[in-house]
Amino acid sequence: MKWRHPGQVVVAGFALATVVGTVLLMLPVSTETGEATGLLTALFTAVSAVCVTGLIVVDTPTYWSGFGEAVILGLIQVGGLGVMTLASVLAMLVAHRMGMRMQLFAQAETKSLGLGNVRSVVFGVIRLSLIVEAAVAVLLALRFGFGYDESFWRAVYLGVFHAVSAYNNAGFALFSDNLIGFATDPFVLFPIIVAVIIGGLGFPVIAEVLRRRERRGRRWSLHTRVTVLTYGALLAVGTVAVLLTEWRNPNTLGSLDLHHKLLVGLSHGVMPRTAGFNSLDLAHFEPTTLLVNDVLMFIGGGSAGTAGGIKVTTFALLGFVILAEIRGEPTVHVLGRRLPAEVQRQALTVALLGVGVVMIGTVALLAMTSFRLDEVLFESVSAFGTVGLSTGITAKIPAAGQLVLVALMFIGRLGPITMASALALRERPRRYELPEERPVVG
Amino acid sequence: MKWRHPGQVVVAGFALATVVGTVLLMLPVSTETGEATGLLTALFTAVSAVCVTGLIVVDTPTYWSGFGEAVILGLIQVGGLGVMTLASVLAMLVAHRMGMRMQLFAQAETKSLGLGNVRSVVFGVIRLSLIVEAAVAVLLALRFGFGYDESFWRAVYLGVFHAVSAYNNAGFALFSDNLIGFATDPFVLFPIIVAVIIGGLGFPVIAEVLRRRERRGRRWSLHTRVTVLTYGALLAVGTVAVLLTEWRNPNTLGSLDLHHKLLVGLSHGVMPRTAGFNSLDLAHFEPTTLLVNDVLMFIGGGSAGTAGGIKVTTFALLGFVILAEIRGEPTVHVLGRRLPAEVQRQALTVALLGVGVVMIGTVALLAMTSFRLDEVLFESVSAFGTVGLSTGITAKIPAAGQLVLVALMFIGRLGPITMASALALRERPRRYELPEERPVVG
Ligand SMILES: [K+]
Ligand SMILES: [K+]
Repeated sequence: MKWRHPGQVVVAGFALATVVGTVLLMLPVSTETGEATGLLTALFTAVSAVCVTGLIVVDTPTYWSGFGEAVILGLIQVGGLGVMTLASVLAMLVAHRMGMRMQLFAQAETKSLGLGNVRSVVFGVIRLSLIVEAAVAVLLALRFGFGYDESFWRAVYLGVFHAVSAYNNAGFALFSDNLIGFATDPFVLFPIIVAVIIGGLGFPVIAEVLRRRERRGRRWSLHTRVTVLTYGALLAVGTVAVLLTEWRNPNTLGSLDLHHKLLVGLSHGVMPRTAGFNSLDLAHFEPTTLLVNDVLMFIGGGSAGTAGGIKVTTFALLGFVILAEIRGEPTVHVLGRRLPAEVQRQALTVALLGVGVVMIGTVALLAMTSFRLDEVLFESVSAFGTVGLSTGITAKIPAAGQLVLVALMFIGRLGPITMASALALRERPRRYELPEERPVVG
Repeated sequence: MKWRHPGQVVVAGFALATVVGTVLLMLPVSTETGEATGLLTALFTAVSAVCVTGLIVVDTPTYWSGFGEAVILGLIQVGGLGVMTLASVLAMLVAHRMGMRMQLFAQAETKSLGLGNVRSVVFGVIRLSLIVEAAVAVLLALRFGFGYDESFWRAVYLGVFHAVSAYNNAGFALFSDNLIGFATDPFVLFPIIVAVIIGGLGFPVIAEVLRRRERRGRRWSLHTRVTVLTYGALLAVGTVAVLLTEWRNPNTLGSLDLHHKLLVGLSHGVMPRTAGFNSLDLAHFEPTTLLVNDVLMFIGGGSAGTAGGIKVTTFALLGFVILAEIRGEPTVHVLGRRLPAEVQRQALTVALLGVGVVMIGTVALLAMTSFRLDEVLFESVSAFGTVGLSTGITAKIPAAGQLVLVALMFIGRLGPITMASALALRERPRRYELPEERPVVG
């Protein structure tokens, strides 16, 4: 079987889902009031859902009808599953092409890659997603039913919606204040945090962790070790940063008691990894917290999962490149493995193009609005990283600016995945060799 | 002759100059009022001068006496000449070690590198500096004498101070509003712009351009071509950006007529390359202009010159790496030359460590002050890039924050130079080879 342009398949699929979602959301039946929705609002919401971002220009529970909410839920599921599946398949194709051991199947040593392997990845992704979503939905439904006296079907509906939204790192919620109302409820926050992390680590990591439980003794692959370590470290950094900077802020953590401070701090350490739920009002965050979150959101979560950003491996590998350079070592070593030069260049490209896109988006939004840099930068990074956190300016941005956000969400969701894979799969023959020359750097 | 730790020589020299400058500036004789200056103000001013930055916490002409101004001028000259000389020598050592053709001397094909070569570079730098500074000083003195009715000695003094400050990309001025009073005077702005560019392109480029005039026919080295093209392109971008965003701003360009708009626009296109003079009040700049300037100031000017930033070659080479990656080419070609993998890694390291340092500085300043992100980010980048432009908050930043700026200036001035050179000179033997493994990126 041939994948001539894997990137094009991904982009076409997302464009199709966006068109269908936009049309459905424009229908009168999608709104609470029964009035038809304008193109821009429907498009923005569809892209935000299918790119599992969570930025909103209208209040989800009060604006959209049950049908509209179901459309959003469907887009989230399609978008999340789509990226997870396609990125896993692409990673497998790259691994196969490179003759590399990739822990997506039990028969890791397979020589030929057939349709059966692709099918097993697709089924693996779907099975994992449904199991985690179902388990989390049950926990949440129980809590909503018994803790908040919701009716049976309402509790089930809330459970399913937030479980899917969490596992897909989408950040859409059916409460006008997102999860601020549950800031002190671990029975709501913990299941959501767990779903966010499992979805956000990425399928290759989860698949390998599950498989390793069966066959002990062998080490995790480099990808899994780097992802887990970096994801965990960034989670800790995010939690500590929020706790440090917001501890005394009366509008955020200040009014909570100690163990609720820690609970909310943990949830806001997880969310920039790019789930995007919020249990505090970000409009009241200190500028320092916002800037630290900008960095964390830009880095994002694991590859071939539902998280966005440039991905934790990209960030970590660049760190190892710098470390090798400072030590004056000719090759880059990462946790006992050698990092090929092409992978270094790919990481560099994904990261720097990401910086470029965010900068261009921020300059454009700054020029179009009168919001402050910290608000606009946060919005740009949140869109690019498909995070969905906002200081509350999304709906107030003019049409042209919202289209900039749409572009950022699309590029942020599909750019790193398609580019890194396309780059890894393509390989031009070296036809001639030019003489070497070294400009002065720094 | 041996340079065991070239980076240490540079850092020690700058530390010594800073200590001497600080002590001198603390003396009562250094101030207009005859009162002794506190340690922090003297240290900040000395570091700003020796790092040719130009950020100030007290008004240069009204606070410092003639003696104090002379100390500042001396520190600028020592700092500028020091970096230009040492960086040129280091570049030459690297070139020699790599067996590379480096156009610093007439006898480019020399096989052994002796003290004579170093001496010729040192003398070349000093000669070039004094000639350019003298020529610009004469032009400025004539203008101040005849255009502004300054007395003979006052005109000479003003001419020399601003010529030295301009050639060294220092940005210190003897007018409380910097060059805003000369915004419409090309006879002041043009000589300053020319001095800024010659100093900012760097000695290797100027030396090669001058030498090529004697021996026609051979192409410029890759370093010179990349530097000149990128420096010119960034100058154009900076000019167009200021003109576009400030054209109608009544507090900046809005009130000027067409050709003065262009003149001031050009000067503000040059200054972020990191001279730091200003002929407009940056407190009134649009946020968009500030952000574009942040990017330009971070990139900075040419290597082994008086400009700061990560340097234009670093920026351009990373662009070529990304271009090669997008095209799927196994090797990186730059203007008909092949770029060694180590140089790619050096550029990556210098740029990403720069981003890291600026981010840490910005987070620290944000946490310490109540200024907006756009003001604080501008201040951080200006300090790191040794630019000296400011929205006017420098003096209002608390002591701890000013020490952060001192650290940023020092790291920004010495970091890229010493690191890139040290990295290029060091070379660890490859003792063993680990198995290769490819994590998923993006
Ligand atoms: K999200
Ligand atoms: K400067």
